[in-house]
Amino acid sequence: MQKRLMEKIEKIETEALGELYQQDFLLSWRHSEAALRAVLQTAEALRTLRGEGTASRVFDNGLAVSLFRDNSTRTRFSFAGAANLLGLAVQDLDETRSQIAHGETVRETATMISFLAEVVGIRDDIFLGAGHEYMSEVGAALEEGYREGVLPQRTTVVNLQCDRDHPTQSLADLAHLIEQFGGVEQLRGKKIAMTWAYSPSYGKPLSVPQGVIGLLSRFGMQVSLAYPPGYNLIPEIEELAANNAVESGGAFTRHDSMAEAFENADIVYPKSWAPYAVMQRRTELLTQQDTAGLKALEDDCLENNRAHLDWECNADLMSHTRNALYMHCLPADISGVSCAHGEVSAEVFEQHRLATYREAGWKPYVIAAMILLSRVRDPRATLEQLATAGRPRVR
Amino acid sequence: MQKRLMEKIEKIETEALGELYQQDFLLSWRHSEAALRAVLQTAEALRTLRGEGTASRVFDNGLAVSLFRDNSTRTRFSFAGAANLLGLAVQDLDETRSQIAHGETVRETATMISFLAEVVGIRDDIFLGAGHEYMSEVGAALEEGYREGVLPQRTTVVNLQCDRDHPTQSLADLAHLIEQFGGVEQLRGKKIAMTWAYSPSYGKPLSVPQGVIGLLSRFGMQVSLAYPPGYNLIPEIEELAANNAVESGGAFTRHDSMAEAFENADIVYPKSWAPYAVMQRRTELLTQQDTAGLKALEDDCLENNRAHLDWECNADLMSHTRNALYMHCLPADISGVSCAHGEVSAEVFEQHRLATYREAGWKPYVIAAMILLSRVRDPRATLEQLATAGRPRVR
Amino acid sequence: MQKRLMEKIEKIETEALGELYQQDFLLSWRHSEAALRAVLQTAEALRTLRGEGTASRVFDNGLAVSLFRDNSTRTRFSFAGAANLLGLAVQDLDETRSQIAHGETVRETATMISFLAEVVGIRDDIFLGAGHEYMSEVGAALEEGYREGVLPQRTTVVNLQCDRDHPTQSLADLAHLIEQFGGVEQLRGKKIAMTWAYSPSYGKPLSVPQGVIGLLSRFGMQVSLAYPPGYNLIPEIEELAANNAVESGGAFTRHDSMAEAFENADIVYPKSWAPYAVMQRRTELLTQQDTAGLKALEDDCLENNRAHLDWECNADLMSHTRNALYMHCLPADISGVSCAHGEVSAEVFEQHRLATYREAGWKPYVIAAMILLSRVRDPRATLEQLATAGRPRVR
Repeated sequence: MQKRLMEKIEKIETEALGELYQQDFLLSWRHSEAALRAVLQTAEALRTLRGEGTASRVFDNGLAVSLFRDNSTRTRFSFAGAANLLGLAVQDLDETRSQIAHGETVRETATMISFLAEVVGIRDDIFLGAGHEYMSEVGAALEEGYREGVLPQRTTVVNLQCDRDHPTQSLADLAHLIEQFGGVEQLRGKKIAMTWAYSPSYGKPLSVPQGVIGLLSRFGMQVSLAYPPGYNLIPEIEELAANNAVESGGAFTRHDSMAEAFENADIVYPKSWAPYAVMQRRTELLTQQDTAGLKALEDDCLENNRAHLDWECNADLMSHTRNALYMHCLPADISGVSCAHGEVSAEVFEQHRLATYREAGWKPYVIAAMILLSRVRDPRATLEQLATAGRPRVR
Repeated sequence: MQKRLMEKIEKIETEALGELYQQDFLLSWRHSEAALRAVLQTAEALRTLRGEGTASRVFDNGLAVSLFRDNSTRTRFSFAGAANLLGLAVQDLDETRSQIAHGETVRETATMISFLAEVVGIRDDIFLGAGHEYMSEVGAALEEGYREGVLPQRTTVVNLQCDRDHPTQSLADLAHLIEQFGGVEQLRGKKIAMTWAYSPSYGKPLSVPQGVIGLLSRFGMQVSLAYPPGYNLIPEIEELAANNAVESGGAFTRHDSMAEAFENADIVYPKSWAPYAVMQRRTELLTQQDTAGLKALEDDCLENNRAHLDWECNADLMSHTRNALYMHCLPADISGVSCAHGEVSAEVFEQHRLATYREAGWKPYVIAAMILLSRVRDPRATLEQLATAGRPRVR
Repeated sequence: MQKRLMEKIEKIETEALGELYQQDFLLSWRHSEAALRAVLQTAEALRTLRGEGTASRVFDNGLAVSLFRDNSTRTRFSFAGAANLLGLAVQDLDETRSQIAHGETVRETATMISFLAEVVGIRDDIFLGAGHEYMSEVGAALEEGYREGVLPQRTTVVNLQCDRDHPTQSLADLAHLIEQFGGVEQLRGKKIAMTWAYSPSYGKPLSVPQGVIGLLSRFGMQVSLAYPPGYNLIPEIEELAANNAVESGGAFTRHDSMAEAFENADIVYPKSWAPYAVMQRRTELLTQQDTAGLKALEDDCLENNRAHLDWECNADLMSHTRNALYMHCLPADISGVSCAHGEVSAEVFEQHRLATYREAGWKPYVIAAMILLSRVRDPRATLEQLATAGRPRVR
């Protein structure tokens, strides 16, 4: 048992750790492949540690601040679980109960909540062109606070979903793929279909598909992105994926048919999102607080969606894949279960349901790994110390 | 001091522990008398441990999820205190801030919040015929998750009040009685009057009186249930209490007069509730979202209540008891204090106020006992280890 | 390193510790100067401990209850950080989700939330003549609960801002001054201008200026209080400051001009508040739930404020000080940043911005000191034990 754990710990690559220590984790593409592998390896070591029932408290005390500007269940609980696993206490920043409305600047709030905080996890995915900028601004304030001796530590920011990327999701997805296929090297040449899917809802963020194509294109995979005409993602991120594919020896293709993308796929990831143009317009209307305009946009968008009811992941489409692994960030819109027509047929979803739960199960460990690598200079030593101490998690 | 603690620990009966380990605690009547005694004995040991100022942390880390579908102060704090006593961190599942509305199934949510959770405490008492079913569904999902290797542990569910039972309350009540009367055997033959009482409010759950009669009828007590005509509880649970009484050598009687029930009572528990028929109708109307119907029902019910203003626990009625112990789950509707006419006169309440606080004081320990017994295979060994280590709770 | 820490610990004066142990901290002027010095010295020792990266967990378990009846970011996070620093878990009492509306008395709620609580931190600053009374009532209930054996400990109340005082703020301010001027003795004779300042908002509590003049007048400072005619504080507290100044060998003067107060000041604290008379009227209207009256009062008050747009801390005014330290409890209303005209010019604020962050950074340690001194009989021994153990905060 403990031997297996030690092996996991020793597998953590150390070359890129300096790139993560005391740094925010905002966009997966800002980090080297080695750094991302270190996150995944640390996540695996932490999961093994917990699986073996070993105490994993790294911090005697410290806060993990969570700031959710959009609803969340699984990411909120993943963050809470990750923080707790390492010994941090979660403190929510609830903007409705704070004095923020009252003219407070981002810079100031960031400092005020961070005197005793190790990490600030932020979800801010409603406004296009705002979420990432906000997180960067918080990060810059924390950097200034540390440099100027106002903060006793360089509290770090972890992106729990912005308008561009959702790195804790995409890295959990990648960890799941590595587990399912038996190693990151086994992913080379595998075909993943990241496709739009029909949903009776509107305004779903772009960050999941963007995060997936931005990350998986770096590991030699054949990434096929499919969506109905006009449903594109942020153009720069589609380009980035294309460039990644060239560099990693994989491929990145675009399709306007779900069936085409599914053809011979090893993995499918059918998921609804709002078109980039709609998200841009929506951001404008939200900024102008144009309620009537927002309603009109929603109606419009839902009607457009209805032209693509056939973008549903069902048994017929699945039969053209190589017995593909089905992925979803959850919750999925399941036809006949959560809505009349949705992203996936009840039959296909039920068949793969437990696998999607396993996929989600990686997220707490990925977040814990991000926290640990940003807070501790020598995470291998820290983990080895925990493993050697071998204190039981439950007395 | 420590000797007393060790005696308490050694008193924990071990024969029925297997019935509690990795099992949900939903209804007291699903558990054997031996199992219930083990809960009470463990609660007492934990209270002694804390009273002696000894550290009681059993978990290095782990979440205790709380899901309150109805307002709560004392149960919420009892759960928080219990979790903290054992070393768990509370994480609220706030359904208004989650993505649950968004088509998520119970099964999925249950799994998503439980990756790193030891226990999920649920209050769901608004809909008749729904609360217990919901908790059972959560429990089944956690069972599946554990069996299928999705969850690293069999997270357990603790009922913090459903439509049928309120076991953390009724067991706290029983612990209080045992303390007041000097042992569970001393309760044999004692008469308890569990009676309806007038309140200017409507829609109070049935779970407290049901929990009380369903539990105390098992310990050879004379349980007298009284309510105005038409104010009955769920019929199956009244029957269950009657059967329990036969088996335990006690008695279960029904009355339509408060005075009759109080006659020679050793304990009185006067408490308002909405009639079963009203709760059924209310559940229908809530399901149909029939606001006008709900208003009409409320008016109707309040008017009916007003015919029973005399169901107030006052000095005159108390004078016909054997100097009875007054009990209440709190908050009580006190005549002239919280309302013009209520469940209890100010005089009687004030006389027994501190005793009701003591009654409430058992709840954190009962919940902690339920958590411990569901999570740890050999709770005596765990507690002995804590006692022997003898680390001070406050350094 | 450790030597420095030990020196800080040894500096904690012990003569007045008995005055703080198991006592609420409600008003700074209820405590002796020696007791206040002990709070500050303990805060400094805790900050040093944390700064040196030493584990500071004093409690194996225990709750720190927070009850905020007004919005808060920095005090909420300061309380959370302080509790966590010592090993306590924060549990919010959210009155909107509790059963308190439901006729529950203060006395009862206070007890119900405190069975396993070490401390209850309360912000209640909306109603004049109510906040302090509420906290006193809670304290009395906790005292009764402990005396009667209902509570296993004398849970203590910490005032996180009431209608009269804001002692965690004023003591953080004092700690900041001591740090900036090199010792409490260095404050003797220094001039501080505590002045009203213009803000486009209304209804700001009086507790900050009251707390500041009530505290700093005790350390031989020259306290100059300035406000436009009619903008006075609670008269009894102005008198108290005057008396303090006489006793401490300082001075207390009143002015109706910002410029006059700033003249040769060593420290300036320009901060908006609502006049006492307005707060009285507002409290009446709030009690009567007179929405129209409240709106009229607000309009009136904002118009009155507009006559004093020139009460802005700007470079010109600052040039008449002795290169004064600028203080603010934050968030400040900054002209051209958070509003067109505000309490302070953008230029002056930016120049002193980091210093105000440092000022705020003391608050978690002041609160932690208050908690520690109320919970532990010999805080020096506790701190020495932590220092000697020298366990790293981050493994």
